Amino acid sequence: MTQAPAPVEFWFDFSSPYAYFAAQTIESVASKHHRPVLWRPFMLGVAFKATGMTSLSQTPLRGDYARHDWLRLARRAGIPFELPDGHPATQLSASRAYYWIEENEPDAASTFAARTFHAYFAAGQDTSSPEIVAGIAAACGLDPRDVLGAIALASVKEKVRVMTDEALRRGIFGSPFFIVDGEPFWGHDRLPMVDEWLDRGGW
Amino acid sequence: MTQAPAPVEFWFDFSSPYAYFAAQTIESVASKHHRPVLWRPFMLGVAFKATGMTSLSQTPLRGDYARHDWLRLARRAGIPFELPDGHPATQLSASRAYYWIEENEPDAASTFAARTFHAYFAAGQDTSSPEIVAGIAAACGLDPRDVLGAIALASVKEKVRVMTDEALRRGIFGSPFFIVDGEPFWGHDRLPMVDEWLDRGGW
Repeated sequence: MTQAPAPVEFWFDFSSPYAYFAAQTIESVASKHHRPVLWRPFMLGVAFKATGMTSLSQTPLRGDYARHDWLRLARRAGIPFELPDGHPATQLSASRAYYWIEENEPDAASTFAARTFHAYFAAGQDTSSPEIVAGIAAACGLDPRDVLGAIALASVKEKVRVMTDEALRRGIFGSPFFIVDGEPFWGHDRLPMVDEWLDRGGW
Repeated sequence: MTQAPAPVEFWFDFSSPYAYFAAQTIESVASKHHRPVLWRPFMLGVAFKATGMTSLSQTPLRGDYARHDWLRLARRAGIPFELPDGHPATQLSASRAYYWIEENEPDAASTFAARTFHAYFAAGQDTSSPEIVAGIAAACGLDPRDVLGAIALASVKEKVRVMTDEALRRGIFGSPFFIVDGEPFWGHDRLPMVDEWLDRGGW
């Protein structure tokens, strides 16, 4: 018997631009090292309360820089990026739907997550709406009525709370945040180091 | 007549660990592209007041991560790193000395800056002390009495205020912060992108 390789944990908030950029390449970084990716949405706003930080977009100077940096990253990667009106929108519905899909149709989960990022950052869709989220799930082969029902379930709501608590307990305070064999890496910028860590087995 | 190539501006606070790491390689990144480096200390605490941010070391969760990350970066680079007692110490004396040296002995300025980083992060020296700073300057060939006198000059104090104001006016809110041909880059993590920007002339 061989043990399955430990996953690269990819913690993120669906409204995080840097997580959108990381979502473009995390699967290829992990698969290069024969690792699966465990997509882990959580509610970044709860972590902000613990650290006293605020959303980048709402921080003077830093917010201006970040908006410039996101466009620069998008041009560099050749991918669309447009900050939605009302950004950042709380992504409870998408996070709930994600965990329900992961439990019930695990093969569709990462595709749903990637498409949710695309819907929010590239297609101008309001992914805070349960109906929009159900529509994204439908495009991934799920029954949108099941997903709409799931988003309203107490057990699914509780799952997102539990995952957000787990994030905080494990010291995860930002998005994206990667954990590789117990080693924490914060930020899209750290992906080359995640790659190097996987390659060298740490240092 | 050929025009001198525009410098890579390297803005930093002498008590910033990520700036210490950037200081190890910024000269080689710039010289690869035939650019000089303009070292620009400023008072990060003043910028923090503008953004509402706090010192990394004093932020819950983020501080723990940063301490872990600094040691990891030091091991990777093979350089010493030890957070001084009482970190972060305000680096007014070193910043004042830097600008005075830049004006009076420009060839010694970047060496003084690099050695000040080393003194604080690798040699356990209290670089908030004017006497320690004067000692570092002496090791760079300056007369320590001149440097001690300069640190106390109203015009030199004013210079650090002016440079910090300039930083804020130009949207510089963190350390290290690089400006290349008008393009801003925040963070040690961004050095590979600074390199790429210099190489491609932007994108």
